Amino acid sequence: MRPPLNHPDRLFPPDPAVRDIARALYGSIRDLPIISPHGHTDPQWFAGNEKFSDPASLLVIPDHYVLRMLVSQGVPLDDLGVARRDADSAEVDGEAVWRLFAENYHLFRGTPTRLWLDHTFETLFGLDEPLGPASADMYFRRIGDCLGQDDFRPRALYERFGIEVLATTESAVDPLVHHKAIAESGWHGKVVTTYRPDSTADPDHPQFLGDLETLGSLTGCDVTRWQGFLDAHRQRRATFRDHGATATDHGFPSADTADLSPSDCIVLFDKIIAGGADASERALFRAQFLTEMAKMSVEDGMVMQIHPGSVRNHNAAVFERYGSDKGFDIPARTDYVAALRPLLNAVGMEPGLSLIVFTLDETTYGRELAPLAGAYPALKLGPAWWFFDSPDGIKRFREQTTETAGFYNTVGFNDDTRAFPSIPARHDMARRIDCAFLAERVTDHRLREDEAHEIARALTYDLPKAAYRFV
Amino acid sequence: MRPPLNHPDRLFPPDPAVRDIARALYGSIRDLPIISPHGHTDPQWFAGNEKFSDPASLLVIPDHYVLRMLVSQGVPLDDLGVARRDADSAEVDGEAVWRLFAENYHLFRGTPTRLWLDHTFETLFGLDEPLGPASADMYFRRIGDCLGQDDFRPRALYERFGIEVLATTESAVDPLVHHKAIAESGWHGKVVTTYRPDSTADPDHPQFLGDLETLGSLTGCDVTRWQGFLDAHRQRRATFRDHGATATDHGFPSADTADLSPSDCIVLFDKIIAGGADASERALFRAQFLTEMAKMSVEDGMVMQIHPGSVRNHNAAVFERYGSDKGFDIPARTDYVAALRPLLNAVGMEPGLSLIVFTLDETTYGRELAPLAGAYPALKLGPAWWFFDSPDGIKRFREQTTETAGFYNTVGFNDDTRAFPSIPARHDMARRIDCAFLAERVTDHRLREDEAHEIARALTYDLPKAAYRFV
Amino acid sequence: MRPPLNHPDRLFPPDPAVRDIARALYGSIRDLPIISPHGHTDPQWFAGNEKFSDPASLLVIPDHYVLRMLVSQGVPLDDLGVARRDADSAEVDGEAVWRLFAENYHLFRGTPTRLWLDHTFETLFGLDEPLGPASADMYFRRIGDCLGQDDFRPRALYERFGIEVLATTESAVDPLVHHKAIAESGWHGKVVTTYRPDSTADPDHPQFLGDLETLGSLTGCDVTRWQGFLDAHRQRRATFRDHGATATDHGFPSADTADLSPSDCIVLFDKIIAGGADASERALFRAQFLTEMAKMSVEDGMVMQIHPGSVRNHNAAVFERYGSDKGFDIPARTDYVAALRPLLNAVGMEPGLSLIVFTLDETTYGRELAPLAGAYPALKLGPAWWFFDSPDGIKRFREQTTETAGFYNTVGFNDDTRAFPSIPARHDMARRIDCAFLAERVTDHRLREDEAHEIARALTYDLPKAAYRFV
Repeated sequence: MRPPLNHPDRLFPPDPAVRDIARALYGSIRDLPIISPHGHTDPQWFAGNEKFSDPASLLVIPDHYVLRMLVSQGVPLDDLGVARRDADSAEVDGEAVWRLFAENYHLFRGTPTRLWLDHTFETLFGLDEPLGPASADMYFRRIGDCLGQDDFRPRALYERFGIEVLATTESAVDPLVHHKAIAESGWHGKVVTTYRPDSTADPDHPQFLGDLETLGSLTGCDVTRWQGFLDAHRQRRATFRDHGATATDHGFPSADTADLSPSDCIVLFDKIIAGGADASERALFRAQFLTEMAKMSVEDGMVMQIHPGSVRNHNAAVFERYGSDKGFDIPARTDYVAALRPLLNAVGMEPGLSLIVFTLDETTYGRELAPLAGAYPALKLGPAWWFFDSPDGIKRFREQTTETAGFYNTVGFNDDTRAFPSIPARHDMARRIDCAFLAERVTDHRLREDEAHEIARALTYDLPKAAYRFV
Repeated sequence: MRPPLNHPDRLFPPDPAVRDIARALYGSIRDLPIISPHGHTDPQWFAGNEKFSDPASLLVIPDHYVLRMLVSQGVPLDDLGVARRDADSAEVDGEAVWRLFAENYHLFRGTPTRLWLDHTFETLFGLDEPLGPASADMYFRRIGDCLGQDDFRPRALYERFGIEVLATTESAVDPLVHHKAIAESGWHGKVVTTYRPDSTADPDHPQFLGDLETLGSLTGCDVTRWQGFLDAHRQRRATFRDHGATATDHGFPSADTADLSPSDCIVLFDKIIAGGADASERALFRAQFLTEMAKMSVEDGMVMQIHPGSVRNHNAAVFERYGSDKGFDIPARTDYVAALRPLLNAVGMEPGLSLIVFTLDETTYGRELAPLAGAYPALKLGPAWWFFDSPDGIKRFREQTTETAGFYNTVGFNDDTRAFPSIPARHDMARRIDCAFLAERVTDHRLREDEAHEIARALTYDLPKAAYRFV
Repeated sequence: MRPPLNHPDRLFPPDPAVRDIARALYGSIRDLPIISPHGHTDPQWFAGNEKFSDPASLLVIPDHYVLRMLVSQGVPLDDLGVARRDADSAEVDGEAVWRLFAENYHLFRGTPTRLWLDHTFETLFGLDEPLGPASADMYFRRIGDCLGQDDFRPRALYERFGIEVLATTESAVDPLVHHKAIAESGWHGKVVTTYRPDSTADPDHPQFLGDLETLGSLTGCDVTRWQGFLDAHRQRRATFRDHGATATDHGFPSADTADLSPSDCIVLFDKIIAGGADASERALFRAQFLTEMAKMSVEDGMVMQIHPGSVRNHNAAVFERYGSDKGFDIPARTDYVAALRPLLNAVGMEPGLSLIVFTLDETTYGRELAPLAGAYPALKLGPAWWFFDSPDGIKRFREQTTETAGFYNTVGFNDDTRAFPSIPARHDMARRIDCAFLAERVTDHRLREDEAHEIARALTYDLPKAAYRFV
């Protein structure tokens, strides 16, 4: 007899005593609403509420986790329906892409992608046979049929998934029309934006000058001067808050921060605007910008998120041909102790500031981030991120941060995804791994079972809601 | 029914077969005397043998593990009774501090602090109810009552804890009056000092010039000249040995060592004394000093301990207001392979030298320290330190060092603590985790059970006694 | 009753349910032939097929894992029979060396060396009593007796071990006479060479100039000019392929690569040849050489292996007195993300290239290597290497790479050994740990059992055979 596609005890420890406790913990939190405070779903979905198109366009072509694995084993991006930048229009044969994906589905064994997809296949589309060459066409038809139905429209899925709040992420110069439309639609779903100003503050960003100009025209501020530049951001942050934002997000290459004097800021900014800044000055500008954002967060109460350490577009040819987010962003060694010191010396002791830091360098969990978060009132640890948002990755995060930072300096789970259908699967995985972690500590008597129940609920619901100030 | 505050099987693996072996191993070593070769208790306690004051002053205010966690969740240091540097006297309401601590005790869930404290509460003070807001006042009274009794004086506790030898740590210019008093008191307890010359050898230390002058006046050596400086250290080391010291300890920011020619040493030293050395020369001086200390250890047989890699006083405002050791020392990435090479090339093959190295950078366990300790006769691995002196931390230490360095290039446990009442709890934790580690390797047939018993005893008693030369 | 020297369930997880699955998986692959695609056995053994001499000369003196541990505990290399470089001849008392080894055998507790040796002792020599002082002489006699028999000659052992193919490693200027002799002997064993050009391409290599000259005379190319130098390598690669080589191997200190213009290459090469290149230019030359090798691999189909990150001969005195490979090579922090970028941008998307990368810096598994191998079609992850070719090391490799790179971007096991008798023990250990890893993932329902069987076979046989192109 074939085992179920998603076993009810999946990701629980094998020892019967531990597993029983994990089950009990999970049982008490599995149906709590989903708090999704950081992600990259498209607000247009919820504004327009159009049906999703075919299975390949929903589940394969936009998912860089899926693309990268197939490419790594020699499947060309062209064959996967990924549009070339210079193509007039991408003619995609969804069925062929799906079949190619199904033929290579064994490559995902042992990866979280496999677990997310199997969860989606079964719970969303009622499929209980493993995906493979033999079942590819059946899968394609079944998923396609579902997507044609009204209860698979974005808002219906949002409701079915039990989402309480969902944050998207928009550039500082985004007009926010979709969030406006959602608000005006009368729909009760809570889809909020997040302020992401990278492109207006990183001189090395390809859209820097253009987005800076847009920032000026949107705000009426003179963004060619330091003070006007800051005022423009202050204003846009307020606008984002009007569209539900409670947080900002920052994705520079490093976590470097600076705390220059106002006059040094002006000199540096003028040099940046004049285009004469060298690489280290451009890095210093990014560093100073982070501290400015933190100071504004002290003023306006927005949560600040820092996501450093990704070397974007590692392969130049892939980037030139297909653009960003095709699976070629690679983590790099990242420092936090020296990097965050200027910012933390400026505002790290502020009780009103909520600064959430993420990493792609797991060596910093125990050595740097847990010690910092276990000391500074402003600092909290974001959950395991990107490559580490996985069963073993989440487990390592807890194992390497808890003894120094405890549970209450962490902020629950982020799904951080563009793959809307995978949101329940991702939250379910995190809940299971947290419960397994807690069950192990109950079994070896480091925690009482009543404490573990409290913590499980906190990690799932209370902490993310509080940390991101969804009140 | 509430589980016991300290379960007899705590920290043992959940699998019944493994747990049985862990129990048997632990049973055979749990009552061995405590060897405490490295720590920071106050020798005055044992010299004067005065009663400890109230619970907060004993267990909360001086413990940077406790302070940092409370501060990280927004509790001000002022409210915790921590004296400001500029305060005339700290008026502390011990009961209020204790209540604040009790109300926040849930923050320590999952941390070793919680386990150490629960162990202390139950075994020392007979408390078996969990600490929390409801039990805070009862706890305060009970602990206070105990502290008022003679059998809770420092010497009585030393005996009750089953300590065989306890090393404290003193500055090179400490007059050692308390150790003298202990020796002259006729008390049989063995409390020895350790030679810590950092402040006389690190030009960046705030007390450098003053302590250097004291070093000169204590020894009669001309410490403004390189040879006199070395002679002064040689003399103080002998004085420390007269007060029981078997070891030196060194806590510079990095593990860098150097092996300059004598004439280069003189040039460098003169520049340091003249105050004209730049940052890299000051670092080079520290590096050369470590090698000088190692060479003196070859001469006089003192064990040498190196504790690098802590960024002290990360937050300037906390340091200015409250001083050092308030929880704001943060680990940093640390190199050993290149750093120790000059010293190890000079004296690393000396069979008579015992050099014990610690790290706050767990990535170096398997990559650098185990390979070095598994090759050089002089080098031994100190135990998991500070943030990693915890159940998972000690486990990672064994998992990442044993396959390359074995057990016999390690030196047992150090409690490294100022928190005297926690010493039995810390040693007990280390013994349990080592037994759990060994039990796992017996169960998967990597070790025979008789070997595991021998190793458990070695890790607990034989290795620290031999490595620190307590004969 | 004494447990068996090698328990049939060794290295399997303790939980009965998991262990049963591990047993079943292992049972299905334990007898598959050994593919040994990377190692350092001596081809002369298979060419001459002479008997091995005494136990110490076979199992102790040439094994740097054994030497380093004994030295680290104070045993002098002289006493272990290691010849000094300046000695006319090494008079070795094999029996005394063996006894010294046996007396210190407890030092290897918890190390893979102990497991490899116990496996060899029992399966090869029929010894089932633990090695120690009491059994030392019996061991020496028994092993000595065996080595005197014909079925312990190298070719007989090759057959008894179930080896299907064994790769050795030779310098680019090796005359390959032994491989020629093997081929001409009519023996059916498949012993192939591997192209290792380090000494002809690293200006810091002690043999650089001499080996470069030999390269010129072997090929008739003008190796004092860039084009001739490349042609010479192209020609030698072909010659190596004629002796069975399917792969090249590269062991520079770092993984740095470069992709200079042809004219910059000529300028750099001329400077190297003239002896005027500084350290960074010599490093750049090594970096460029790696990219040239990768481009030749695209042309000629040879698999390319990169083994960076070892600081060779950390102790100068040991190197001067005894030479290389005496246990004093120490891993160092290694970067891959920036280092490999030039090479991967040049040829990383080539579907025909097979580039296998190894590391001694475990922090790069999850942060750098798995993300790179999970994106680039050319890149594959070599197995846990050297210090990490051990039960916990192999487990960490799988735990930290699988979620991002899956199983199919890895290449099975390499024994990488000079210790011929340990080859079955090493492969058996890797097979057991892989099965244990898979069994855990079956038990927590991340994999189906039928998938685990397929993967176990792939990791053991299919992947190494395909990755190294043994067809």
